[in-house]
Amino acid sequence: MKAGILAIGTELLTGQTVNTNAAYLGSELATLGIGVYYHQTVGDNMDRMKLAISEMLDRVDVLITTGGLGPTQDDITKEMVAEVLNKKMLLDHNSLELIKERFRMFNRTMPESNVRQAYFPEGAIILDNKMGTAPACIIELENQKCIIVLPGPPREMKFIYSTYIKDYLSNKSKTKLSSRFLSIYDYGESAVEERLIDLIDGQTNPTFATYAGDGKVILRITASGPDASENEALCDQYSSVINERIGNHIVSYTGEDIDEVVLNKLIHKKLTISFAESCTGGKLISSLIKYSGASEVVDTGIVTYSNASKIRELNVREEILQTYGAVSHQTCYEMVKGLMEKTGSDISVSVTGIAGPNGGTLEKPVGLVYIGIGFSGEIFTFENKFTGDRELIQNRTVIKALKIIYDFLEKM
Amino acid sequence: MKAGILAIGTELLTGQTVNTNAAYLGSELATLGIGVYYHQTVGDNMDRMKLAISEMLDRVDVLITTGGLGPTQDDITKEMVAEVLNKKMLLDHNSLELIKERFRMFNRTMPESNVRQAYFPEGAIILDNKMGTAPACIIELENQKCIIVLPGPPREMKFIYSTYIKDYLSNKSKTKLSSRFLSIYDYGESAVEERLIDLIDGQTNPTFATYAGDGKVILRITASGPDASENEALCDQYSSVINERIGNHIVSYTGEDIDEVVLNKLIHKKLTISFAESCTGGKLISSLIKYSGASEVVDTGIVTYSNASKIRELNVREEILQTYGAVSHQTCYEMVKGLMEKTGSDISVSVTGIAGPNGGTLEKPVGLVYIGIGFSGEIFTFENKFTGDRELIQNRTVIKALKIIYDFLEKM
Repeated sequence: MKAGILAIGTELLTGQTVNTNAAYLGSELATLGIGVYYHQTVGDNMDRMKLAISEMLDRVDVLITTGGLGPTQDDITKEMVAEVLNKKMLLDHNSLELIKERFRMFNRTMPESNVRQAYFPEGAIILDNKMGTAPACIIELENQKCIIVLPGPPREMKFIYSTYIKDYLSNKSKTKLSSRFLSIYDYGESAVEERLIDLIDGQTNPTFATYAGDGKVILRITASGPDASENEALCDQYSSVINERIGNHIVSYTGEDIDEVVLNKLIHKKLTISFAESCTGGKLISSLIKYSGASEVVDTGIVTYSNASKIRELNVREEILQTYGAVSHQTCYEMVKGLMEKTGSDISVSVTGIAGPNGGTLEKPVGLVYIGIGFSGEIFTFENKFTGDRELIQNRTVIKALKIIYDFLEKM
Repeated sequence: MKAGILAIGTELLTGQTVNTNAAYLGSELATLGIGVYYHQTVGDNMDRMKLAISEMLDRVDVLITTGGLGPTQDDITKEMVAEVLNKKMLLDHNSLELIKERFRMFNRTMPESNVRQAYFPEGAIILDNKMGTAPACIIELENQKCIIVLPGPPREMKFIYSTYIKDYLSNKSKTKLSSRFLSIYDYGESAVEERLIDLIDGQTNPTFATYAGDGKVILRITASGPDASENEALCDQYSSVINERIGNHIVSYTGEDIDEVVLNKLIHKKLTISFAESCTGGKLISSLIKYSGASEVVDTGIVTYSNASKIRELNVREEILQTYGAVSHQTCYEMVKGLMEKTGSDISVSVTGIAGPNGGTLEKPVGLVYIGIGFSGEIFTFENKFTGDRELIQNRTVIKALKIIYDFLEKM
């Protein structure tokens, strides 16, 4: 089965928005055994949109469009799909009610322009969008072809894809597939490839692919064949081969991020945790609090950005700050100690470092970060040197701290 | 002048790589007054690549390809361009010497496969690539058309673009452009369009476009014409018309995010700030700390996720928590009060709410969030009802809190 992805929106052509949707859909479709043959992007222009829709429809079985479902005059994707297919646009009363309801929840009256979002090409399968006001739809055509019309904002697009489209396409595609997504941390993509080169070079079934991003490497294992349980067994077999080689870097076999894994481990072990952050400024604790259930284990976080607040909030001694500086093993240690005494949480974590771009010296360069962890009376501190810009150093620090917590939880 | 961007590489279709090159080129070309009409991506496949090249050449004046210039068998962009144009591929001895030289610099011998990188379609203008081994080229065609063949790795592509292509295209293009990017908060995309419908409907010069994302709406104003200062004046004139209508929602005319605007205002006014966060779990303070310079004004952040920590850290009275609950005007007020007393910062901000998906009741539903702000002895609290999933409610809370801080800073 061949697929094409058509992104719609002038903001993509002018470079204000990067088309991350195409990459997301491409990798998702790959796990279903559906090959993406074309990406295309056109602006909010009738003629070019219609030409793109009809040309791509000739060339693929599944055409997925993203964008152009908003309430404004230049949002015309559904209308252009209807024109190309020679279908009428009909009002879906149920969708209109749901859109109105969403505005009511927000204490706002629906502007008249939003009514357009409840019109669809005749015969469309309509998909409610719980993340926004633009419902999506599927239009089924002859020869098993279909057009899938998705909203442009990535959150909404991903919600619709994972809630409805994945199952829909998986039923359409005949091949059965099983996959594992190994979340690998603290190990680079090329290092992963080198350690697994024999598997990757010799791959037939299962196949392997690595994707790097956000401080992690995802290794996808996909087995295909008519028998689902044989596919599963193949995946398990290769997962354990890989586990033997780089197991201490794998935190999940289902693609979860390390923050979610750590949070679930804390909940499972019923351990409370508190944080004292300097250069990460709350990013570390918020990485856990973004998940529901955090309230069961996350107690307190303190962002002590100034020396004064380190002293006031964490009882860091002034002479320690003066003798060793705020970015040092010693201050990091005192931060954990103060936090432990203050909160009584089972685990206390501190971070202090120089995220840059200013504040670095020859002796203490930008990227120097100390991470401390305290547990049942013992305190350990770790020195790290990260590279990158401010945001990257903050993100790498968060991931490293989570990996340190993860390793502690594993050893317990 | 119309342009099209053709990205080449199977890794883009499978989602292993996000096509950031297209966005970079789109925004660069926009500043030259060259409109990008199409993006397209194809894999390393001869037929599909040739079809895409010839179709796009029919439709645009400037076709830019990225990718497929490497030394391996599947790097065939230049060959396919030559086939479509019916030109021979010729060895460029100068390029071959430069490629060999680059290998010598790394103490390596050039593999035989790299010789392919020194072949170009007959008559091409060859552009040395100081960032890698793949030279780029321009092929000039009839009717002022051209094909520009660039390498895929973003560093190399940007180097070639900024070193050679920008000047080349700027000479080719006659129009000059000026733009403003208005960052609009607390006002939906459709509301913006309704308030400005007369401008948007009647647009010729300048043109207007809105883009929504991450809780903000960007309104782009672009004026074009031969005289740069007239374009600037047009942009200014329309910016002030729009400012009269929705000025209290505009936080920047250069597209900045509200967090950066708030931080810069605090720095400019030399005001310190502290935060007490519950349901946003540190996201609010980290939205400021992600920028350099935050240390000048951001003092302390406290994430008081449990009732116990609200009492311990902020002196919230237990009877307040029992009588009104953690999510209430009263607790929000006490959080600000405790924070003010503790830190002495000029501005103190508190957040308490229910981010969900659990914890909501009929009386206090998921999405109910109180935001408090304290400044020189006075405390104000605001009730909000946000919709969306946990992450969206957290993000909307952060943006609303920043808007409240922004409004306070404006009024001072």
